[in-house]
Amino acid sequence: MVRQSSNARLRLCDARDDAAALLLIDIQQAIDDVDLHGAHSNPALDDRLDELLTCWRGGNGHIVHVRHFSHTPGSPYRSGHAGADFKACAMPLAGERVVTKHVESPFIGTDLDTWLRRHGVSRLVVAGVATGHAVSTAARHAHCLDFGVVVVADACASFPLDDDEGRRWSADDVQRFSLALLGSHYARIASTREVVQQF
Amino acid sequence: MVRQSSNARLRLCDARDDAAALLLIDIQQAIDDVDLHGAHSNPALDDRLDELLTCWRGGNGHIVHVRHFSHTPGSPYRSGHAGADFKACAMPLAGERVVTKHVESPFIGTDLDTWLRRHGVSRLVVAGVATGHAVSTAARHAHCLDFGVVVVADACASFPLDDDEGRRWSADDVQRFSLALLGSHYARIASTREVVQQF
Repeated sequence: MVRQSSNARLRLCDARDDAAALLLIDIQQAIDDVDLHGAHSNPALDDRLDELLTCWRGGNGHIVHVRHFSHTPGSPYRSGHAGADFKACAMPLAGERVVTKHVESPFIGTDLDTWLRRHGVSRLVVAGVATGHAVSTAARHAHCLDFGVVVVADACASFPLDDDEGRRWSADDVQRFSLALLGSHYARIASTREVVQQF
Repeated sequence: MVRQSSNARLRLCDARDDAAALLLIDIQQAIDDVDLHGAHSNPALDDRLDELLTCWRGGNGHIVHVRHFSHTPGSPYRSGHAGADFKACAMPLAGERVVTKHVESPFIGTDLDTWLRRHGVSRLVVAGVATGHAVSTAARHAHCLDFGVVVVADACASFPLDDDEGRRWSADDVQRFSLALLGSHYARIASTREVVQQF
């Protein structure tokens, strides 16, 4: 079913609040491995993430870095492999929370929900990779857990997608459609500029 | 990040197993309210659901009917309102499990995960509405909880979608793209015929 989301009414200026955390999803070296995923949709991704982090580090909001450590043999996302390292643009600083997940949702098998509530966080500003995969799963799960969610469109990225019928969806199409789905129910969609100006 | 899913290798003949439950999502009267959602993508939805239920009721697998009861004032999905009733094609019989949810994932605020594990269920055959919304959220969450997932494409349906940029996505496009995303990582995509023939 499709329902009108309360998140559609989430005000961007909520980001100004202490209660709004920046949640960065899977900004790891392997996302730049074009042999693995193809080229992603957002050449300016690193710059937008840098802007968001600079903004948050100048404020009072919490920053949570989520990373994926795979248990799949051969995966570049295995712990200890270079692909699993954070990218330079999103390297956590001391005092910033790092959450390690092994399935796609950062709320399963982690203390993220408990940690956010203990720190009074009720709203999440979400960015990262991939928009229709881990970012969407995180936003959906957060919405179900009653967090207000903003997804920062130009600080996310998508990869091309081949479906079961042999059709290839371009990275740009995947990005656009994933944001349309997210915006229809789960999150307010905003740009880095909008978020930074309001923070 | 995008990873190759183990679910892509899920065999359809797994549906023959006692351990495969049929999970029907939000087959409620309000999905036919065209003023609310627009017309959905699948005129044969009721027939396909009837085929799946007839098949499952002739076998040994569990059947779980998930319904959404909204707490939103004015929603047709509020408990006690006609829109929240199951459609005739998917009316639960005695002995079939009914799970009532109040957020989109059927695994949050319910005993579904516990109930499935207590009954030895490790694989889910998922159908219902809407493909990119509650069906996708259920499939993503189930995948994260380590269930094998089959989504029955022609026993699901999508509604048209208006995005923030003023673009209208047709119900068929929403259906196709949602299945492409699901099939890329979270579920094996199959038809009712394939599932019924293998069960």
